[in-house]
Amino acid sequence: MSHMNELSAINQSTSSRESAWEGFAEGPWQSAIDTQDFIARNIRPWTGDASFLADATDKTKRLMVKVEEVLRAERDAGGVLGASLEPSAILSHAPGFIDRENETIFGLQTEAPLKRGIHPRGGLRVVKQALAEHDLEALPAQVEKAFSSWAKTHNQAVFDAYPADVLAARKAMIITGLPDAYGRGRLIGDFRRVALYGVDVLERAKRADKAALGAKDELSAEDIEALGELGEQIRAFEELKALGLAHGADLSRPALNAKEAFQWLYLAYLAAAKQSDGAATSIGRIGGFLDIYIERDMERGLLDEAGAQELWDQLTIKLRLIRFMRTKAFDELFSGDPTWVTISLGGMGSDGRPLCSKSDFRVLHCLSTLGPSPEPNLTVLWSQGLPDGFKKFVTKMSIASRAIQVENDDLIRPEHGSDAAISCCVSPMAVGKSMQYFGARCNLLKTLLHAINGGRDELSGDVCAPGFEPVAGDYLEFEDVKARFEAMMKRTAKVYMKALNIIHQSHDLHAYEAIQFALHDTDLHRTMACGIAGLSHVADSLSAIKYGKVRVIRDASGLITGYVNEGGAFPRYGNNDARADDLAVWAAQTFMAELRKLKARRNAVVTQSALTITSNVVYGQHTGSSPDGRVGGTPFAPGANPSNGAELNGFVAAGASVARIPFSDCADGISWTVSFAPSSLGRTPEERVDNLASFCDGYMGMGGYHANLNVIDRETLIDADKHPEKYPNLCVRVSGYCVLFHRLTPAQRQDVISRTFHAR
Amino acid sequence: MSHMNELSAINQSTSSRESAWEGFAEGPWQSAIDTQDFIARNIRPWTGDASFLADATDKTKRLMVKVEEVLRAERDAGGVLGASLEPSAILSHAPGFIDRENETIFGLQTEAPLKRGIHPRGGLRVVKQALAEHDLEALPAQVEKAFSSWAKTHNQAVFDAYPADVLAARKAMIITGLPDAYGRGRLIGDFRRVALYGVDVLERAKRADKAALGAKDELSAEDIEALGELGEQIRAFEELKALGLAHGADLSRPALNAKEAFQWLYLAYLAAAKQSDGAATSIGRIGGFLDIYIERDMERGLLDEAGAQELWDQLTIKLRLIRFMRTKAFDELFSGDPTWVTISLGGMGSDGRPLCSKSDFRVLHCLSTLGPSPEPNLTVLWSQGLPDGFKKFVTKMSIASRAIQVENDDLIRPEHGSDAAISCCVSPMAVGKSMQYFGARCNLLKTLLHAINGGRDELSGDVCAPGFEPVAGDYLEFEDVKARFEAMMKRTAKVYMKALNIIHQSHDLHAYEAIQFALHDTDLHRTMACGIAGLSHVADSLSAIKYGKVRVIRDASGLITGYVNEGGAFPRYGNNDARADDLAVWAAQTFMAELRKLKARRNAVVTQSALTITSNVVYGQHTGSSPDGRVGGTPFAPGANPSNGAELNGFVAAGASVARIPFSDCADGISWTVSFAPSSLGRTPEERVDNLASFCDGYMGMGGYHANLNVIDRETLIDADKHPEKYPNLCVRVSGYCVLFHRLTPAQRQDVISRTFHAR
Repeated sequence: MSHMNELSAINQSTSSRESAWEGFAEGPWQSAIDTQDFIARNIRPWTGDASFLADATDKTKRLMVKVEEVLRAERDAGGVLGASLEPSAILSHAPGFIDRENETIFGLQTEAPLKRGIHPRGGLRVVKQALAEHDLEALPAQVEKAFSSWAKTHNQAVFDAYPADVLAARKAMIITGLPDAYGRGRLIGDFRRVALYGVDVLERAKRADKAALGAKDELSAEDIEALGELGEQIRAFEELKALGLAHGADLSRPALNAKEAFQWLYLAYLAAAKQSDGAATSIGRIGGFLDIYIERDMERGLLDEAGAQELWDQLTIKLRLIRFMRTKAFDELFSGDPTWVTISLGGMGSDGRPLCSKSDFRVLHCLSTLGPSPEPNLTVLWSQGLPDGFKKFVTKMSIASRAIQVENDDLIRPEHGSDAAISCCVSPMAVGKSMQYFGARCNLLKTLLHAINGGRDELSGDVCAPGFEPVAGDYLEFEDVKARFEAMMKRTAKVYMKALNIIHQSHDLHAYEAIQFALHDTDLHRTMACGIAGLSHVADSLSAIKYGKVRVIRDASGLITGYVNEGGAFPRYGNNDARADDLAVWAAQTFMAELRKLKARRNAVVTQSALTITSNVVYGQHTGSSPDGRVGGTPFAPGANPSNGAELNGFVAAGASVARIPFSDCADGISWTVSFAPSSLGRTPEERVDNLASFCDGYMGMGGYHANLNVIDRETLIDADKHPEKYPNLCVRVSGYCVLFHRLTPAQRQDVISRTFHAR
Repeated sequence: MSHMNELSAINQSTSSRESAWEGFAEGPWQSAIDTQDFIARNIRPWTGDASFLADATDKTKRLMVKVEEVLRAERDAGGVLGASLEPSAILSHAPGFIDRENETIFGLQTEAPLKRGIHPRGGLRVVKQALAEHDLEALPAQVEKAFSSWAKTHNQAVFDAYPADVLAARKAMIITGLPDAYGRGRLIGDFRRVALYGVDVLERAKRADKAALGAKDELSAEDIEALGELGEQIRAFEELKALGLAHGADLSRPALNAKEAFQWLYLAYLAAAKQSDGAATSIGRIGGFLDIYIERDMERGLLDEAGAQELWDQLTIKLRLIRFMRTKAFDELFSGDPTWVTISLGGMGSDGRPLCSKSDFRVLHCLSTLGPSPEPNLTVLWSQGLPDGFKKFVTKMSIASRAIQVENDDLIRPEHGSDAAISCCVSPMAVGKSMQYFGARCNLLKTLLHAINGGRDELSGDVCAPGFEPVAGDYLEFEDVKARFEAMMKRTAKVYMKALNIIHQSHDLHAYEAIQFALHDTDLHRTMACGIAGLSHVADSLSAIKYGKVRVIRDASGLITGYVNEGGAFPRYGNNDARADDLAVWAAQTFMAELRKLKARRNAVVTQSALTITSNVVYGQHTGSSPDGRVGGTPFAPGANPSNGAELNGFVAAGASVARIPFSDCADGISWTVSFAPSSLGRTPEERVDNLASFCDGYMGMGGYHANLNVIDRETLIDADKHPEKYPNLCVRVSGYCVLFHRLTPAQRQDVISRTFHAR
């Protein structure tokens, strides 16, 4: 709401706040909630190299022994160590510990490490199914009754409302992965606010916002919903304080030192992870913020580098233990138990200074101190302007671990400011100021196949979109197919938006993430984040039709189930060939234009992403053969990647093609997963570090948005596929996250192996 | 939605439906859901007298022995016989019986008669409080946890959203009785549809409505809410069928005979009473409808008059046993455990035929066959055109029982059609076609006192409405006070509408009455039914200021706490004196005009009532002295009644004053509770019956809307107050319902006794 309210709330200052802020540069952040201003005025960017870093402390090493034990126990149990049948909430479980005396930062999701919480508010069916699939104890009858008869779950609300066209599109998997049975995630609370201001100040500001809104002469339905949400947020703050006290932390006041800042911030994050089971539970951009506390403690002689690294190591351990209870179907889509605890590093300030602090180094250094791990999801906001020392440390750690993704800060910053962070894989947002209604994705290739088949599904033959005519002749005409595709995109966009508006209305009402929103501004920028899958196959199919000669194959019922290109080679997306690349751009822009015509809930700005995560495999399994020659049932290329095998001109050409997809029409992110043979980057480790950094600079300079960097030989992966025991910690980056290779499904492992490994 | 959908659903006819409808006159009711058309084409109005009536059957008499036993046990237990701690829902309890072999119609709210269900969906606090106040076992921990941590209750949602001005107005009791902690009630499902069509047809029609709405290109938030509601309605129908099967009734198909029609209709009503704890759970206009089945069975030789009376007696017994778990605060407002099982009788058809059937006589006759009882709430839609025989039977039973209210069908019919019924006390609605958002009432007298005091409360001195100045001088000037009152009415109307929009948004979302709405048309006429209390005191106060000379008395803080009229007698409302009566009309119209300017949820039409029920006593307790000479803390006159003692010119003049309040500005009803000394109506019983009927004709002819008829001596009431044991079944009608006199609070008994007993 207004700064005036926040100001008056904050001005009721206490001595604890004064001492908490002692030594910090003053500024507007003291009279309004403005973490970004605090960081900008106090951060010390580090332009040196990584030589200052320290090893893990003995305390951390002792803790890691216990951590390794529980992780091993989890592996031995088949991936899930157990579940607590008490529905998870901010105050649901007594404090849990791994090894209390060696823990610097306290707090677990349940009373024991890796024991998973359940979140039936999102959907009861999913919880019951997950428990059964993992051979765990069933829900107590009273809990089941509570969430079936008494409490309306998000999932129940959605299915009460879903109309027939949405159900048909969902069944045909033309729209998939919708958060209609689980938490939507993708929110990033500004957890830093709890450390900087303490809960009391934040709560007073929310009360002031509520008073300002409630003072209107008349209240619309939207106003009433917002008032109710503010009421929930205020109650969530009270619960957060109680969670703090249970862990010995008085969160009502600001943190007084670095250790408290880590603990305060983590408990706020933990409350969010206990309250909701968002598919992604990102922690935001915390490096520079926490570094300010470390620097002050160091100046005061309270902390040395080993102590600083201990704080980051211990926080990272906690983040590595975040777990959610997933179904097998979820695992199939998003293999390897990802949680998307995305942490955003680097980036530039609006004043042209880099925002990478020593702590951004320390976060990456955890891959060494603690060993490799897929989580937290390490994300570097890459900019041409970042110091060389940081760039090289990033590419060095990337080559060593394959655990890092880079995103183009020079694209993100103009849109989202210099306190943006990535949620999940590629979604940029201003921390605490904007939120995303997560919309999963539309299978754009299937949309094309439905267009050709007049609305019938190419696999089941069912009519998914009534009122369309199929292609009549034996050969596909480009202009004819294009027109049909446009009409089907228009129709699919409408059905898609109906589903999303239903989902998010239900989620806001029945599975509201109160503590996450309490750590957002009340006046929020909202996006309705749609997505597309199968982009490369759409581009290549259109190219085949336009530049080749594609004959259709019909089954006995007249359904077109196959395609033969009788026209010889055609340009393919991924070779820096405008003929094919422009078709990908056209498809993304056209679908986005249709989405933009539609009204999204609460005036959310409609965006889209080209991102599949690992679902490209399952999407492919449920999609028939396509005109580009892709055989029905085989995986899609992930995200905005060119199709496997299509790229013939090396990674620079491939990157140039991907960079053509305009960020303005894919504002929720364009994901590219790229694999380099080590030799392609140079002969020595130093050369490879330098060349990978140059590659990132070059790719971003062309307007590329995102890259999952994997430097590895195909042969290593083939060996790891055959002998998983030899590679227990082998990480690879898939579309949007990092995963232990052996935890992928066999189909996904094959997909990763069959990627293009750029040799030049 | 559209008739076409319903038509196609109904046309899927089954043989069971054909035989169920055999012998009925055909019409549009067969191709669309239209109970009113069915009644109009099949009803046999009875223009004779009551001589055809039969006594209760032996079966009923045996059952009544058991009923009297449990009623006595309930009295002996202090009013509440027990509670089931399993939250009430359509399928929450196993079928219960009173005395199975003597029951013709099955079904109780819980597994035992008079054992009350709890409804924590409306609000957990109220349930816990009620259990504690009645010394009942506390809620199981898991149930409490479910409704505090897992399920969001209506009450929680409301208080999450309430802004400060609403809380202040609620605390000052300027707006009171709001359904923000319990079910709103006032709905009347068309329970007859279940008997006439069977659930399957009704469910198909709802599915068709859902499909039509869901087929829109874009869905607004309102559309999504409506879709979700239809989803809940469809699930409620499934539950209703299961409830039927548990009672041996296949509700999926239509009823085949009268006994089934009674059972089908009652189970539908029971489902509603199990799902929600609406303050009023009216059953609607069922006499003529069920009479059609009785007449057909009689023609077929399946039923005689004794059998017909048995059906009505047995249904009435069930309705007399309806109970809800109330708090002491509720009992204080609405004494005597009322449930407002309002049943509407009589009325005229749109073709000028009366719609009173023999069954309308049979319903009233239950007061003889079963003895007197306050429930069901017997309500006669009175019209000049009703046959003499029916009119006289009504007034005869009224004089004998004081259990009947009359409402002006000639006012209601033009607005709501000829299938309207009264919900609760005075609220007219077209059954199954319109609904009311129940809004309790605003204390209009306190609004006047706040206006004089510049927004401060005359009792607490708290500022309830900031930004107003108090009256400055020592004497009140009429035009000055009027202007202040107008401004305060404008402000109060806004706060009131904010509260109501919050309440009903929360109720629709968190305590939705799915089975009630399933038995309504999908396209509903909605009203936002506001109300006013203290009308006579407002009129008389304004009259005192205008025609007398009122000096104010201030306390040390400057708060005006008393008034002295130094100007001698002034005209008072209730004497057919336009000078005073016009001030009542002005106040009602002015407040209504302010309400009309405001936007009500879902485009509901804003209405108001002049109705207090028994809350006039509590309102008075919380309202200071007023310029009309009313002493602070003493009761208000109920509803639209003139103030006690103000009426000096007999009941005809009093009725003329009340009849001046225009129905067009009090479309939710104008309640008048009138007490006649028996002698005032004539010397012989016959004269009294005739004169009371003439009075009703005359009052309605003047435009009077409603009358609670009480023919009784004050002395009898004084004796009953002193010796309750002598009058265990003494009923009186209070503002809107009938109550056992001894169950009123002492203050309410005194209030009834101090009413004007018209002697002429």
